[in-house]
Amino acid sequence: AFAGSLFDLEIEVYMVKVSYEQKPYRKTMMRLYGAEVIPSPSTRTEVGKRILKEHPDTTGSLGIAISEAVERCLSLENTRYSLGSVLNHVLTHQSVTGQETMEQLNTVDEYPDTVIGCVGGGSNFAGIAYPYLAEQRHGKPRKETAFIAVESTACPSISKGEYLFDHGDTGRITPLMKMYTVGHDFVPDPIHAGGLRYHGMAPSLSMLVKHGMVQPRAYNQREALGAAVTFAQQEGLIPAPETAHAVKALIDEALRCKETGEAKTILMLMSGHGYFDMSAYEGYLNDSLPPYAMPQKKIDETITSLKRLYPFA
Amino acid sequence: AFAGSLFDLEIEVYMVKVSYEQKPYRKTMMRLYGAEVIPSPSTRTEVGKRILKEHPDTTGSLGIAISEAVERCLSLENTRYSLGSVLNHVLTHQSVTGQETMEQLNTVDEYPDTVIGCVGGGSNFAGIAYPYLAEQRHGKPRKETAFIAVESTACPSISKGEYLFDHGDTGRITPLMKMYTVGHDFVPDPIHAGGLRYHGMAPSLSMLVKHGMVQPRAYNQREALGAAVTFAQQEGLIPAPETAHAVKALIDEALRCKETGEAKTILMLMSGHGYFDMSAYEGYLNDSLPPYAMPQKKIDETITSLKRLYPFA
Repeated sequence: AFAGSLFDLEIEVYMVKVSYEQKPYRKTMMRLYGAEVIPSPSTRTEVGKRILKEHPDTTGSLGIAISEAVERCLSLENTRYSLGSVLNHVLTHQSVTGQETMEQLNTVDEYPDTVIGCVGGGSNFAGIAYPYLAEQRHGKPRKETAFIAVESTACPSISKGEYLFDHGDTGRITPLMKMYTVGHDFVPDPIHAGGLRYHGMAPSLSMLVKHGMVQPRAYNQREALGAAVTFAQQEGLIPAPETAHAVKALIDEALRCKETGEAKTILMLMSGHGYFDMSAYEGYLNDSLPPYAMPQKKIDETITSLKRLYPFA
Repeated sequence: AFAGSLFDLEIEVYMVKVSYEQKPYRKTMMRLYGAEVIPSPSTRTEVGKRILKEHPDTTGSLGIAISEAVERCLSLENTRYSLGSVLNHVLTHQSVTGQETMEQLNTVDEYPDTVIGCVGGGSNFAGIAYPYLAEQRHGKPRKETAFIAVESTACPSISKGEYLFDHGDTGRITPLMKMYTVGHDFVPDPIHAGGLRYHGMAPSLSMLVKHGMVQPRAYNQREALGAAVTFAQQEGLIPAPETAHAVKALIDEALRCKETGEAKTILMLMSGHGYFDMSAYEGYLNDSLPPYAMPQKKIDETITSLKRLYPFA
């Protein structure tokens, strides 16, 4: 929305309905920059109308919002769809984060034993991890580094999904990609970590998980936010609900080291602040935050229906 | 609240009632750090009970919240009241801001023609301005600098108040100070810029206004937030409602220079972000934000009652 304001472009944002409702401040921020914000699924697209007809009470999903945005782009002159996550080139673009981190850690003569980041579509995690992963594989690393990608139990694509061909969006407009997925039809529970509510995972990251170079881990939002509260009270920084999942892994790793007596350098990416997500913390403090975990039965259903759709996958 | 968490202190925060209600995210942030947050006036203090009895629907004010906090401190063992604004030594402590700015501007060979900041009790403005004011008066300044202190029309102590002895708090627990004031009894309209809802002004800053070294200016919140929206669309940064008042003065000065053809270096202090105040911007975008200005009649009343109380002032 801000970039649109700088370049004098008209901006339509398709915001997942549950986020639109749970996070009104984000919506206001985008409106303030001059964008129009539409809760998705909407009646502005054919995909949106079809989904609303079938599931009038849906909370929406990233997969649906992507379908709507792509359809709008295809129906308008002079527009192109620019990917913000999931695709491999986006992950590579993000890796400036890890390159800068490497430089910074070099100045204090440090090298991580463990790299931790949260994953939705994978771009934020890849940003911090890929430069180190490249060094582990092709360079002369100072030590062996472990990589932990943390997702939500509400949408556990790499820890409980399957490695299959699937679409990047719910409306099946995007090409098929080989990736870990819980199925494009899947609408996750309305967790506060909206960025972790994506059914699939970037193809290159999925391959790294498949080959054991990146370890998947999943936490529910209650344990994640609990860890984030501990972190905030120590560091002052309040993590976004997405980041909170990485914080939980960070604290677990540190406690494990404390127990075994190991001294390890753990690198965690603080992917965002939680200033627009204080309602999530209010829920945690008031003990009214559901943990949410996707039942295996539901995963099996969407995966079965995906396999029926594309038997070759 | 965060400092309390670091030093393992129990923290009670008396938060002005209207802010407690308008800005729930700030409350959550303090709770997250482990503090107890009490809307003021409360029934926990004698001052609070007295004020609630007289004005059950009051929105509260900084003057009332200060009274409650001071009373609590006086009634407890091992507690001292540490001032956060208004008193001269606090203003001097804050001046690290201006000292750093001076260093930074020196590195790019710049010196301000105009220094702008918003004022509630004065500490934030003094922080940026005092080092430059000291140089104007006692040093060898590169140029003559103008100083603009921007307040809210809802609480215009330096632009419409009088220079009198008054208390720093509503309950008259603090000593009398010679300052610009609209009267300690005054409860301003519930503007979003909570930090500008203080009836008085720091004694040293009041004296500088009296001697014409600092120019007062007042804007209402609608024009202030309008300017802040323009600023946000250009700079990406979203100012706090308090800062928005300084932004309005900044833009007005810049437009004046554009008209006269002057090339001026204008320094404005970005005193805070608006991430916890998006409801104020939502109000602005929906055109439902009252401008609020304190009527002269109301000022005359509170000043008259102050003069009756302390005829020597």
